[in-house]
Amino acid sequence: MDIEPATPTLLPDWLTRCAENAPDHLAIQCGSTCWSFAQLADQSRHIAQQLTALGIGENSRVALLAPNGLAYVAFVHALTRLGAILVPLNIRLTQAELRWQLSDVRATLLVSESSLLERAREISTNLPDLPLVTLQSLHPFSNITEVSLLAADGLASVSRTFNPRSQIDLAATQVIMYTSGTTGHPKGVLITYGMQWWNAIGSALNLGHQPDDRWLACLPLFHIGGLSILMRSVIYGISVILHEKFDELVINQSLREDGVTIISVVAVMLQRMLNALASEGAGAHYPAALRCVLLGGGPAPRPLLEQCASLALPVAQTYGMTETCSQAVTLSPVDALRKLGSAGRPLLPVQIQIMQDEQPLPASAAGVIYLKGPTITPGYADRPAITAEAFTHGWFCTGDLGYLDTDGYLYVLDRRSDLIISGGENVYPAEIESALLAHPAVIEAGVCGENDPAWGQVPIAFVTLHSTSTVTETEILAYIQQHLARYKIPRKLYVVAELPRNSSGKLLRRELHTLIKDH
Amino acid sequence: MDIEPATPTLLPDWLTRCAENAPDHLAIQCGSTCWSFAQLADQSRHIAQQLTALGIGENSRVALLAPNGLAYVAFVHALTRLGAILVPLNIRLTQAELRWQLSDVRATLLVSESSLLERAREISTNLPDLPLVTLQSLHPFSNITEVSLLAADGLASVSRTFNPRSQIDLAATQVIMYTSGTTGHPKGVLITYGMQWWNAIGSALNLGHQPDDRWLACLPLFHIGGLSILMRSVIYGISVILHEKFDELVINQSLREDGVTIISVVAVMLQRMLNALASEGAGAHYPAALRCVLLGGGPAPRPLLEQCASLALPVAQTYGMTETCSQAVTLSPVDALRKLGSAGRPLLPVQIQIMQDEQPLPASAAGVIYLKGPTITPGYADRPAITAEAFTHGWFCTGDLGYLDTDGYLYVLDRRSDLIISGGENVYPAEIESALLAHPAVIEAGVCGENDPAWGQVPIAFVTLHSTSTVTETEILAYIQQHLARYKIPRKLYVVAELPRNSSGKLLRRELHTLIKDH
Repeated sequence: MDIEPATPTLLPDWLTRCAENAPDHLAIQCGSTCWSFAQLADQSRHIAQQLTALGIGENSRVALLAPNGLAYVAFVHALTRLGAILVPLNIRLTQAELRWQLSDVRATLLVSESSLLERAREISTNLPDLPLVTLQSLHPFSNITEVSLLAADGLASVSRTFNPRSQIDLAATQVIMYTSGTTGHPKGVLITYGMQWWNAIGSALNLGHQPDDRWLACLPLFHIGGLSILMRSVIYGISVILHEKFDELVINQSLREDGVTIISVVAVMLQRMLNALASEGAGAHYPAALRCVLLGGGPAPRPLLEQCASLALPVAQTYGMTETCSQAVTLSPVDALRKLGSAGRPLLPVQIQIMQDEQPLPASAAGVIYLKGPTITPGYADRPAITAEAFTHGWFCTGDLGYLDTDGYLYVLDRRSDLIISGGENVYPAEIESALLAHPAVIEAGVCGENDPAWGQVPIAFVTLHSTSTVTETEILAYIQQHLARYKIPRKLYVVAELPRNSSGKLLRRELHTLIKDH
Repeated sequence: MDIEPATPTLLPDWLTRCAENAPDHLAIQCGSTCWSFAQLADQSRHIAQQLTALGIGENSRVALLAPNGLAYVAFVHALTRLGAILVPLNIRLTQAELRWQLSDVRATLLVSESSLLERAREISTNLPDLPLVTLQSLHPFSNITEVSLLAADGLASVSRTFNPRSQIDLAATQVIMYTSGTTGHPKGVLITYGMQWWNAIGSALNLGHQPDDRWLACLPLFHIGGLSILMRSVIYGISVILHEKFDELVINQSLREDGVTIISVVAVMLQRMLNALASEGAGAHYPAALRCVLLGGGPAPRPLLEQCASLALPVAQTYGMTETCSQAVTLSPVDALRKLGSAGRPLLPVQIQIMQDEQPLPASAAGVIYLKGPTITPGYADRPAITAEAFTHGWFCTGDLGYLDTDGYLYVLDRRSDLIISGGENVYPAEIESALLAHPAVIEAGVCGENDPAWGQVPIAFVTLHSTSTVTETEILAYIQQHLARYKIPRKLYVVAELPRNSSGKLLRRELHTLIKDH
C-alpha cells in the first residue's frame, strides 16, 4: 500500500513496563522471599549498573554459573538493560565441559553465584583472559533483600555512563545457549528476544492468559524450558513461583499453598509428583486453580497421561527444543484425551512440515519434522556452516521423526535417531563416545539409550578394546567421569568384539541393543 | 548477530487455523444461528470463490454495504483469502455521503446485503463504472445455512483460478475505513493485518485471554470497534455473539443467556443497559461470567463508572480511534476504581507521549496526545500529504488533549477540540458546516457539540444568512438532511448576526456557545 508500516521490532522493556503497570504485583517468589515487579526492576537495575562499571555493554557475552534463585532472575533482566548476551552454564556439567564452552563462546566475563565460587575459580584458572566476579546473595531461601556483584581482585572497574535501555529490540540476541548435537561438541544456539516474545504470545493464545496466573518454575533456568518462564512472566505481567530444584514433596506442597496455576515439568518429574500424591492415599488431588501442567522434554509415556486424565489434571504435552525457544507444538488440555499421545498443533507463529529427501509428505506419512517461524533460532553462534546445514529453504530441520494426522496433529515417533532424553536432559551419544575414545585402551565406542522406569531413558555404552588391554569396565567409567556430567555417564558398559556398522562403516546405534543378549 | 532472524510478517491464515485447530468450536452466534469455525471457513471460502470469478483479487477495493450479520462476517474473511481490501460502508450515511466515499476510494465492486439493495442500486446508478452484486442471505436472524453472492445483470464472470491464500501478511492492508477529520471531507484510514494482530495481542495481554471466552458484538462492524472483535475471534479462537443492532433489553438478555464473558460498548449503550437492569428491581445483576465490559468511543461520565463499581461490574475504559485500530490505551478492570476517570496505560506495543510544540511534556502537564507503535495506521489511502501532516518524527498526532499522571496513566481531557462524539459516532463540525454552506442562503456556518443526557453530545449549528433571505431554520435543516446522516443533523439551528472568529478569521468553535444566550 501507500506507506510502509512501522516495523514492530522495538518494544518497551518488558520488566520496566511491568514495574510501571503493576509495581506491587508479585513478580517472583523463591522460598520465603517475595519480590514485586518494582523490587525486581530495582535489583536488576542495580546489577546492570555494576556490570556497566565492569565494562559490560552491548553484545558482551556474559557467562553465568548459578543455581535457580532470585539472583539468577535479577541477573537475566540486568543483561537485557545493557543489551549484553547471557551465556547460561549448566551447573551439572564437568569443569572440562564448562571450560570448553567458555572458551568456545569467547565469554567476556564469568559470573558465579557465591555458592559455586570454588568451581568457578577452578574453571577460570585455566582461562586467564576470563575475569570472574561473584554474584552475591545470601542463600536464595533466606530472606535476602538485595543481590549484588563483587568484583574479584585484579578486575579494574571502568568509568562508563550507565544508560540502561528502555526498549527491547526483537531482532537482538538475548542468550547463547549450548546444546550438543550429533557431531560431538556442543554448539551455542542463538536465542533472540523475538523468539521469546513470539513463543510467549503463541503459548498464551494456546493455553490462555490470566492476569493472576502464577507459573511454577522447577526446571533449571539454564535450560530454555526454565528460562522461557522468566520471559513469559515479564511479557504477561504474571508471577513466577521459583524453586531451586525439583523435589516432588516440596513441589506438591507448593502447588497447594502458593496459588500455582501453571507448572512446567518433564515426564519423570510429573511421575514422581503423582507417585508422592498417590502415597497420601485415595482422594488426594491438586487444587482446581492448577489449570495447566505443561509437559515437555521428551515423549510422555501413555500410562502417565492416562493417570493424569483419571485425576482430571489438565496436561498440555509439548514438543520443542532449545532451537525453537521451548514449545513449538503443544496439545491443548481440551485435546489431551481426544489426541492422546500427540504433541498437538504448532503454536500460532510456527509452521510445520514433514519431509523426506526435501519433499513434503502427505498426512499420516512419517518423515523428518521441519519447523519455520519467528520462534525458531536464526542459527548457531559463530558457526555459519553448521547453521546453513540446519536449514532447508528456510525450514529448520529438527532431525526428529514424526507424522501429522489428518487433523494436522503432530505425533513424534522418535527424537533425532541417536538422542537420548534422560530425565528431561538431552544426552548425545556422540559426545559420550568421544569421551570413551579418549581412553587409551578403547578402539571403538557406541552409545544408545535404554528404557528406564525412573528417567525415561539412560545411556548405555559398548566398546571394543585393544587386545592387550587389561582395563576393567569400572576403570573406563571412572575415567570418563572426569570429562562428562553425571547424567551422561553410561549406566552400563559392555566390552564387545565388534560394533554393528553398515557397509560404509557408519555405526548403527539402533542395532547396539542386539549385542546385549550376545554378551 | 551472525544471521538475520526470519521476519515475522507472515502468519498462517487465522480463520483457517481456527477451523483446523477447533473445527467444531462456536465461531459466531447471530440470532438463532450458530456457525462453527469449520462452517465459517466454508462460507468464507465459498464467497471467496465467487469473488474470484467476478475478477476480485489482490488489492481490489471492495465496498460492503451491510448490517451486522453472519453474511458480513463471512464476507470479511473471504476478502482476506484473496488479499482484497474491504471498504466497509457506514449504513447510517446518506446516499450522497456514500457516493462520495465510493468515488474517492475508487472501489472495484460494491457489494450490498440483500436488505439494502434498493439503496445500493440508487447509489450505483450514479457511478456507472461500479458494478453491484448482492450478498444474499436470508434475514440473519432466521436459520440460514449459507450466504452467497448474486451477480447483477451485465456483470460478466471471468475465468480465474481460485487460489485462496493460506497466509496473512501483517504488512498488507486489510481495510480502508473512512473517518472524517477537521478538514471537511472524510479520508480512508489504512488498516493493516499487523495493526489488527498487535491490537489483539495487546488486548489479550491486558485483559487476559480465556480459550472459552465469548465476546458480544453490538457495535457496528463497519466501525473499528466492531470489526476488531471479528479479528480477535479468529486470532484467539474464541466465539462472537453478534447482534444486528443495539437494544438494551435484548443485550441484557443475551448477557444472561449466551455465556458472554466480554462485551464492547460505548457509554450511551452501557447507561441504557444499566437503566434497563435497574428497572427490573433491586438486586438485578449480570452473571459472574461477564468478566469485562470494554468501554470505548469517547469519555465516560463519572457517575456511570461509579454505578458500575457499585454493581461490581468490571469495566475497562479504553481510548482509541480508527487510526489506532480501536484500543490504544486501556484501563484494566483492577485499576478501574483506583484510577477512576483515567483511560489507563498504553497496550503493550503502543508508546505514548504528551507533546506541545513538538516537545515532550513531563508528567501531569497537559498537551496533545501522540502515539507510536505497530497498531497505529501507516496513513491515509491515496493521501500522502495528509498522512505526512499527521505524523511528527514517526509519532501519530491524535489531536486530542490529555496528560499522564506520575504513574503513567492517561487522562483524556478533550477529544480533538472540534470533535463531537454522539452515541459513540464521531461527528465532525467541519463536515456539517460544509453541508450548511452549500445552501444558497447561508453565508457562514459554525457547529459545536452540546451536552445531552442520552447521547453524550449532539451537534448544534449557527449560521449567518444573506440579508435578503427568507429561509427558515426548518427549511435549512431539511435541506442538509439530503446530504448528511441523521446523527449528524444539528439538534438546533441558530441564525445569528456574526460568528466568533480570531484575528486571522479562523472560526472559534468553542465560543459558539456564547451566542445561545444572546439569541
